[in-house]
Amino acid sequence: MTRVKAIYRVHGDARSIEARARAIANEQSIEMPLAAVDDDFVRSEIVGRVERISQKSDRLHDVEISLSVQTVGEDAGQLMNMLYGNSSLQDDVVLHDVELPHSLVSCFGGPRHGLESLRARVGAGRRALTCSALKPQGLPSDKLAQLAQRFALGGVDYVKDDHGLADQGYSRFAERLQSVARALDATRAEHGAQTEHVPSISGDLDSMRAQVRLALENGVRAVMVAPMIMGASNFHRLVRENSELAFFAHPALTGAARIHPALLFGKLFRLFGADAVIFPNHGGRFGYSPETCRAIAATALSTHDGLNPCVPVPAGGMSLGRVGEMLDFYGSDVMLLIGGALLEARDRLVETSAAFVAEVHRYAYNRRTDDG
Amino acid sequence: MTRVKAIYRVHGDARSIEARARAIANEQSIEMPLAAVDDDFVRSEIVGRVERISQKSDRLHDVEISLSVQTVGEDAGQLMNMLYGNSSLQDDVVLHDVELPHSLVSCFGGPRHGLESLRARVGAGRRALTCSALKPQGLPSDKLAQLAQRFALGGVDYVKDDHGLADQGYSRFAERLQSVARALDATRAEHGAQTEHVPSISGDLDSMRAQVRLALENGVRAVMVAPMIMGASNFHRLVRENSELAFFAHPALTGAARIHPALLFGKLFRLFGADAVIFPNHGGRFGYSPETCRAIAATALSTHDGLNPCVPVPAGGMSLGRVGEMLDFYGSDVMLLIGGALLEARDRLVETSAAFVAEVHRYAYNRRTDDG
Repeated sequence: MTRVKAIYRVHGDARSIEARARAIANEQSIEMPLAAVDDDFVRSEIVGRVERISQKSDRLHDVEISLSVQTVGEDAGQLMNMLYGNSSLQDDVVLHDVELPHSLVSCFGGPRHGLESLRARVGAGRRALTCSALKPQGLPSDKLAQLAQRFALGGVDYVKDDHGLADQGYSRFAERLQSVARALDATRAEHGAQTEHVPSISGDLDSMRAQVRLALENGVRAVMVAPMIMGASNFHRLVRENSELAFFAHPALTGAARIHPALLFGKLFRLFGADAVIFPNHGGRFGYSPETCRAIAATALSTHDGLNPCVPVPAGGMSLGRVGEMLDFYGSDVMLLIGGALLEARDRLVETSAAFVAEVHRYAYNRRTDDG
Repeated sequence: MTRVKAIYRVHGDARSIEARARAIANEQSIEMPLAAVDDDFVRSEIVGRVERISQKSDRLHDVEISLSVQTVGEDAGQLMNMLYGNSSLQDDVVLHDVELPHSLVSCFGGPRHGLESLRARVGAGRRALTCSALKPQGLPSDKLAQLAQRFALGGVDYVKDDHGLADQGYSRFAERLQSVARALDATRAEHGAQTEHVPSISGDLDSMRAQVRLALENGVRAVMVAPMIMGASNFHRLVRENSELAFFAHPALTGAARIHPALLFGKLFRLFGADAVIFPNHGGRFGYSPETCRAIAATALSTHDGLNPCVPVPAGGMSLGRVGEMLDFYGSDVMLLIGGALLEARDRLVETSAAFVAEVHRYAYNRRTDDG
């Protein structure tokens, strides 16, 4: 395959679908009347081609369009632009799936670490990983550091910053990072806790680079970013510049329904280098269906393209009561993220975190016993 | 006003709207159970406040929520995150409007040039501005430069790159920029044409900076960017670093319906420094209504916040036949962008461009005569 294949799910009736498909192919390539193009190379290579139309239901069709890989170059933002730049403005079109030529896949390179590395770093064996979040924003750095310490005492693997934490006056990035690092170092020295802090990196590329430098100086090995806020090109740039860092991708500003979540989180974010992707689990505060969540996890973990598997991190209003059900649903190739529901325990945060961790560990043990 | 005010248009019934409003206020601020927050400052300042709920129709409400300005800091990406980061994932919520404290407005600063400067640069007096586009991508640089020259001979004010043009092998950015600059310089020297090239800047922040440097070295005075692909923080960074440049904002990847277009294009892009905003005109290839387009233009041109007016650039399948109607609709504080419909003229591109330009100039003259 030498062309980029994009599948658009288009709402509209069967009589007009062929014309609509050609219009999308044009919109996402030359964006001008075909009759006005007299260049042979443009007509044969650059103009988007309608490769297939398949009817999904009465008024729904999947339209497969191929685009020249040359239109993308090697830039992640330009890939997003070619896939969905203008069509994102047309509300009958959802970007449903994408298949890329191997050259482009290896150019972007996917997760530099992925599932096995994130497990190995915290000595997790083959079990599911655990994660919680430092919040609320507005707390001073030392209070956030105390929370990190208590999650660590409870045995949580990864403690990420809330995605609302940036470089605000009430907890400057540098100060917060150092406070949390000191707290986790102390807990490691005293109790052997292997908990890792995953700070949220924000701002323009310069600010992000400065934050990454500071994170590396403080022993951080994973950071969280929001690819749709920072832009895909800048995300991929940070990934290339920092091959020792693992990247957690946050879904902020991705929108709900215009790009299929399994494509955006599981395929594109992973392609650009996400080692873990956070997404809204079904039955929480967000509207994703179980099928969508299963598709996100399967896509993130897929290795058919030779890239490392990326850890699915279902989240968004999860609670201890759902741990067993979530592990049944996702299996153990997953990181469970519970934030608010642990923080609600307040004075019993260590014990509640430990209960969360114990349930994940026990589940792994039971599964091994059942299997064996 | 010392808080950020965000207005969300929420789909749902009247009985549950108060609870839903509180949930959005929580989602966009502390993102955790209020019961778990014991810090006074967080409770009184940082937690989002539901300020007002007004019913728009049977199942539609406007929910006004205020957020602490401290949560934003001075970062454009973080403003987007605080306004709509997580709620963008919930499909019952559209970000409808925003009001910002003066401190934040002056921190971002808005258009450095805006309407009057873009007019003065091309000697346009008080009339509407004209614009066309270099495309299709896939053409070599010298052919794109020939197109630019012919638009210039026709008298078009601004000639922008197609937003699909990046740094592809078939027309490298540097080569294309220099070819177009040479062509326009020659046309200026021979025919006095004042046409300006507006190259499209793409890639990560480093690539964009290199492209901007090259553009400045070649006498370019305006560039086009896609804020939602590059990220708002990087857009604002480029604006701050290059106060001599005017910025055209392209709507690629903005989505159709989750953030009100008048807010995104007219208010937020302008706030971050867009001197001109390109958006889909009604009746073209995109689905915006006349009311939406009128609102975008009014918001972009508004000066109530003390910022420069930003030029509305309705586009997307416009033709010569619509010039009069568009000027009736928008008045002359507008830039008309016609791309494909001019390129369709092929051998008569100069004459057709000249006809477009003449109609805009004549309209301005007639209006002056009518008024006087």
